Amino acid sequence: MASLVVEDMLRTYPADLGDVDRQKLAHCIEECAACAQACGACADACLSETGHLDMLAKCIRTNMDCADVCQATGSVLSRHTGYDANLTRAVLRACVVACATCADECERHASRHEHCRVCADACHRCRQACDDLLGALG
Amino acid sequence: MASLVVEDMLRTYPADLGDVDRQKLAHCIEECAACAQACGACADACLSETGHLDMLAKCIRTNMDCADVCQATGSVLSRHTGYDANLTRAVLRACVVACATCADECERHASRHEHCRVCADACHRCRQACDDLLGALG
Amino acid sequence: MASLVVEDMLRTYPADLGDVDRQKLAHCIEECAACAQACGACADACLSETGHLDMLAKCIRTNMDCADVCQATGSVLSRHTGYDANLTRAVLRACVVACATCADECERHASRHEHCRVCADACHRCRQACDDLLGALG
Amino acid sequence: MASLVVEDMLRTYPADLGDVDRQKLAHCIEECAACAQACGACADACLSETGHLDMLAKCIRTNMDCADVCQATGSVLSRHTGYDANLTRAVLRACVVACATCADECERHASRHEHCRVCADACHRCRQACDDLLGALG
Repeated sequence: MASLVVEDMLRTYPADLGDVDRQKLAHCIEECAACAQACGACADACLSETGHLDMLAKCIRTNMDCADVCQATGSVLSRHTGYDANLTRAVLRACVVACATCADECERHASRHEHCRVCADACHRCRQACDDLLGALG
Repeated sequence: MASLVVEDMLRTYPADLGDVDRQKLAHCIEECAACAQACGACADACLSETGHLDMLAKCIRTNMDCADVCQATGSVLSRHTGYDANLTRAVLRACVVACATCADECERHASRHEHCRVCADACHRCRQACDDLLGALG
Repeated sequence: MASLVVEDMLRTYPADLGDVDRQKLAHCIEECAACAQACGACADACLSETGHLDMLAKCIRTNMDCADVCQATGSVLSRHTGYDANLTRAVLRACVVACATCADECERHASRHEHCRVCADACHRCRQACDDLLGALG
Repeated sequence: MASLVVEDMLRTYPADLGDVDRQKLAHCIEECAACAQACGACADACLSETGHLDMLAKCIRTNMDCADVCQATGSVLSRHTGYDANLTRAVLRACVVACATCADECERHASRHEHCRVCADACHRCRQACDDLLGALG
């Protein structure tokens, strides 16, 4: 099975990571990758719901916004040192809002479209991971 | 000369754009594209400054963070309608911080490395455009 | 007016650019940025064409593919030196296919949806710029 | 443990996936996500190798190119249906070249820098997954 190598990359990092919670950081990077992928796939799944697209247009947009923000957040967090804490926090806050917004929208369609349920779960987990990391950053 | 078609895409948009300031929106999307490109190119230019790289490592990181955040911001803003104002604001705030951080860092090297001066200018303009749009969003 | 600073970044580049055609390179980076933005905006404009979405689902997908590929191509090209010619060529070739595919699809809707006409034009220009740069790379 | 939900998104896909090999597709999307993250983290780890940066400048560039191409490839592949086989193939081919180039470069530093070894492995796996999917696409 393929899997992310976030923890291997952290373990082999040649410099001090500062006092960041390493496990929360790894977890957050992983959830950002998972959520970005899920949102991209959910947008495409929604586009296959022929006959329901007018109702899903907002969901598709929110999916794409969330995918973009999660991808940028994961990239910023993967630069492990020399954090500008202000920038990390601002990006994490944007990601929390993107994930919360997308979870809300996907949940509105979750009973009818299972891909929206899977995607809403990924958004919730990513939001939680960002919140946890934000808390740990102090 | 090649140029962005942001305004043409806004002009031909088939739905109401709401009460967003159309000119500030277009300007902000353009500055995000310009800043993302400049930051990517500046990171690469820094990597060509053989013998000075230890001093430029932080600048390269900040360039890459800023490029990622500007690219995501431009993508979110290019979805013109159905704005979730909270999400737009959170993304713009992250972009303001990314641009301010990168402008500060690039300016420290601007007297020695002209690419850092050009990049710092792009960051300043993008930060201003994000601030202006944030103000217009109310 | 905001504008890309591609040429300024090339002008201030601290190392030899090799024998790449500098004007074709700058032009291609600019067209990639323009096409990525146009495609993202066209996907969103299509999503606003209430009542026509079933017919536009493929166009939206192609828009998103083209936006992703153009963005990656512009980023790779913005790393100006040390080109691995094989990689540059492979990325440019993928971009040519993405732009051609999206131009074809957008043109099918261009008479009804003006945003698709603007986007098809951006795709054509970007495809041409990639082709020209490919030719110049030898 | 966080993990990608690629298979859940494929399982809940509301339309026919055509005759693509579902397992190879899922695997390839996962490896693209893993490789993009590893390359971004490796670029940053290289930037922390104070005193060795002149020797790692090419590696950092190749990391960034590979990250961009893998991210775009994963996004294109996550749009599961209506594949334009030509586009999918062109993107996969670019990804094969990007991964092979980055694996080569990282391997040159793998004995000294463990992060380069981990990253080279991720590049090899992603290259293989892209090759396998290309073969399955016919």
